[in-house]
Amino acid sequence: MNETTVVEYGEIALNEPVMIVGLPGIGLIGKLVAEHLIGELKAEKVMEIFSPSFPPQVNVNPDGTIKLVSNEVYAWKGDGKTPDLIILVGDYQSVTNEGHYELAGIYLDIAEKFKVKRIYTLGGYGTGKLIDVPHVLYAVNKPDIVEEVKSYGAVFNEGELSGGIIGASGLILGLGELRGIEAVCFMGETSGYLVDPKSAQAVLSVLCKALNLSVDTKELEARAQEIEKIITKIRELEQQQQPSPKEFTAEEKYIV
Amino acid sequence: MNETTVVEYGEIALNEPVMIVGLPGIGLIGKLVAEHLIGELKAEKVMEIFSPSFPPQVNVNPDGTIKLVSNEVYAWKGDGKTPDLIILVGDYQSVTNEGHYELAGIYLDIAEKFKVKRIYTLGGYGTGKLIDVPHVLYAVNKPDIVEEVKSYGAVFNEGELSGGIIGASGLILGLGELRGIEAVCFMGETSGYLVDPKSAQAVLSVLCKALNLSVDTKELEARAQEIEKIITKIRELEQQQQPSPKEFTAEEKYIV
Amino acid sequence: MNETTVVEYGEIALNEPVMIVGLPGIGLIGKLVAEHLIGELKAEKVMEIFSPSFPPQVNVNPDGTIKLVSNEVYAWKGDGKTPDLIILVGDYQSVTNEGHYELAGIYLDIAEKFKVKRIYTLGGYGTGKLIDVPHVLYAVNKPDIVEEVKSYGAVFNEGELSGGIIGASGLILGLGELRGIEAVCFMGETSGYLVDPKSAQAVLSVLCKALNLSVDTKELEARAQEIEKIITKIRELEQQQQPSPKEFTAEEKYIV
Amino acid sequence: MNETTVVEYGEIALNEPVMIVGLPGIGLIGKLVAEHLIGELKAEKVMEIFSPSFPPQVNVNPDGTIKLVSNEVYAWKGDGKTPDLIILVGDYQSVTNEGHYELAGIYLDIAEKFKVKRIYTLGGYGTGKLIDVPHVLYAVNKPDIVEEVKSYGAVFNEGELSGGIIGASGLILGLGELRGIEAVCFMGETSGYLVDPKSAQAVLSVLCKALNLSVDTKELEARAQEIEKIITKIRELEQQQQPSPKEFTAEEKYIV
Repeated sequence: MNETTVVEYGEIALNEPVMIVGLPGIGLIGKLVAEHLIGELKAEKVMEIFSPSFPPQVNVNPDGTIKLVSNEVYAWKGDGKTPDLIILVGDYQSVTNEGHYELAGIYLDIAEKFKVKRIYTLGGYGTGKLIDVPHVLYAVNKPDIVEEVKSYGAVFNEGELSGGIIGASGLILGLGELRGIEAVCFMGETSGYLVDPKSAQAVLSVLCKALNLSVDTKELEARAQEIEKIITKIRELEQQQQPSPKEFTAEEKYIV
Repeated sequence: MNETTVVEYGEIALNEPVMIVGLPGIGLIGKLVAEHLIGELKAEKVMEIFSPSFPPQVNVNPDGTIKLVSNEVYAWKGDGKTPDLIILVGDYQSVTNEGHYELAGIYLDIAEKFKVKRIYTLGGYGTGKLIDVPHVLYAVNKPDIVEEVKSYGAVFNEGELSGGIIGASGLILGLGELRGIEAVCFMGETSGYLVDPKSAQAVLSVLCKALNLSVDTKELEARAQEIEKIITKIRELEQQQQPSPKEFTAEEKYIV
Repeated sequence: MNETTVVEYGEIALNEPVMIVGLPGIGLIGKLVAEHLIGELKAEKVMEIFSPSFPPQVNVNPDGTIKLVSNEVYAWKGDGKTPDLIILVGDYQSVTNEGHYELAGIYLDIAEKFKVKRIYTLGGYGTGKLIDVPHVLYAVNKPDIVEEVKSYGAVFNEGELSGGIIGASGLILGLGELRGIEAVCFMGETSGYLVDPKSAQAVLSVLCKALNLSVDTKELEARAQEIEKIITKIRELEQQQQPSPKEFTAEEKYIV
Repeated sequence: MNETTVVEYGEIALNEPVMIVGLPGIGLIGKLVAEHLIGELKAEKVMEIFSPSFPPQVNVNPDGTIKLVSNEVYAWKGDGKTPDLIILVGDYQSVTNEGHYELAGIYLDIAEKFKVKRIYTLGGYGTGKLIDVPHVLYAVNKPDIVEEVKSYGAVFNEGELSGGIIGASGLILGLGELRGIEAVCFMGETSGYLVDPKSAQAVLSVLCKALNLSVDTKELEARAQEIEKIITKIRELEQQQQPSPKEFTAEEKYIV
């Protein structure tokens, strides 16, 4: 296999769907949200993407059968109130620089094939410290949708995201803009050290408003409580440690 | 040389052969088994694969002549009781990510050319600790052969292989599934620190049952005894060392 | 997106322009100078270059909209006294080895398209220590322009730049020579530890002489003073530290 | 520049030349010998090779002009006693794995273009310790020339070069064998820590016998004496240090 290959499973007719992208990244937030949606909505797998830009790996199922690492596309027929959905999830993002660009292009090809009217990419925003109430930050590739996106509860303060957005979540916005495809990125604040189902809940909540959708969130809550126990332990350990060294002042931060 | 090149040596007529893949990997288990089989069966070299995805290296023979690093394909006519065999061995696996995918595709092209009815890939499964009686784990790319594979003495416990199978042994199963080629991976448990002819013996024993084949294993046994002496030394050294730091509890292991 | 893509914005007629290249590098000197010129001259954006050799990243604007990382080409109609200008700036240089060569070729294609009569590439020259009065070093791809280039205040002492010039600034000279395009590199001396607007001022001053151009430099001066304060702090810290270990003698430096 | 480019300078008629390859490598031995030969024989530059597989770099000449990093081919008309020569030298070998294979192929294309009757590749063999009288090891890609090669003073003991030969020196033998081009590699023993003109002298001496050539070696001797002084210093330093930790026994060395 020398080229990225998209395998399609049957036909499905969707009406101006919205595309959700939840690939692995910081805190696994996008992946948690997208997989939760697929499970709750019982969305149907319609495509699988294999690529030499993914690691040379198969995962092993509980029965000893294997699954070549891939990205997967699921479809869900909306109920009129909520739009039809295309949900992209996966085991990995590209491991090479060029592969990121190639795959983001393929994701947009799929969006165009389904005539999606908007893409939401989901991810995390690493803050380097544990957060009690995670905000959901937004970024958009079209200025005139900022107010709409804010109304769903997402926020953005100047100076945040100064390091940019790395990976598929950002590239889909950037390359989407070049193709005229409207796209929004929601990023849950997260420490960056842990799988973060609590931040995933916050992102899911904003996304549900944007989609006029309601889904059960019990499973995410249970996982969040599990992680919360670990965080409590880490905090206890931190308090037993020495104070950290003095931080740089604002001025010293100009240093590159 | 810009592309992987397959050089063929003469013609050989095989009848629905089984393919054995033993490339270098953890514990060198697959390579030990495949080379042992080639030696014992006096299999004939029928192909050599050169690739820019291998290291830029020649090996030097005892007489000062050289050999460009490669993978090699050997053929053996079965005796009716045992099927005809195609055995793939080699100096290296790909050193690049994309090269792994390209080479696995070429291995499957070769399998298709010979109309193989099944592929067995051989490897090791690193446990991080020395093991007295190595199990042989299995993974398959077709659910309905699980019971057959178990009957050869291979095992699989849920939760094992949670990191997936990396490299050619796994990719051949994954890409083979996409092409409808039946494939099984046998992995000998091994510490991951040493060449492991004992684990290779265990894998060979399972493979022989699967192929209805019997081969002399004296050479592997001799090498296993040599390594066993080294392990004894290492164990003595370990016992003189301090106890290792406390391991994570199951709960703490959820951290990514 | 599998290939570097150049997007053009409208047409602009230039007469034998000079091309200025200020991409990110040591001390951010080239970028500081080029962006300063674009701002002061109110040059017009005429092209944008996107490439899979750049990081897979979007930057985020103060309003939450995004910008795919890129290189940009600006144009400015001279006043007769100063030649017409093409200015290349950007967020990144290539992150891969081959990408450097490909992009330098594309920059030269652009130079040829605009029929530029000379290219000035701007960069820094890391000395590893703080410098009070930075020199501006030159390198050229045509021996008969050395005297002219010196007359602008740039210097070159044998033995300097012994490590060569790495990245776009150098490649444009090297590949430009193969195509018969005259090119000069100006490098401001800099410690290599800090963004260096003072060294950028020195490069700007040489460049302005070369272009017979005068621009306001207040903004660069203000940034230089800011950094100067940080340097003062660093120097104070250095004086409190232990003396560094003995350096190698000249002879010992022959060791590779 | 997306592809390796060979620039030719004029025509030169050679009669069954022998090709010498001296690219940078351990101890810079091959490069020292090839450059010494070019200088002493006043060989003529006939080709230059530029490649995206080389670093993105220009070197700077003493007058401030630049030179894009490259490999160069020189030609020399023999005197009847000594054969005509093609000498390949260069600033770098490939920095990528695939680039090594591509460039070795291009070197062989050049050999075929000139109808060379044999190739000698020159390099070093790192022993990890300082050596008083360096041997010259050989490797060949054709068994029936071993005796001839030994007669020039090169040696080979079984078990040496067990790690293979890495880079162009080896690949040219390996890929040359596939094309039926006779090739020999001479490797001077060297510590691996220093530029080694003494080992280069030893290789030159063997090569001169093979070519029936005599050249002045004063320059190499002078450089060797310079390095010898540094080695004396290093030895003094070593003797002042603590004894190194016990080495592995032969048996323990079986560990991979």
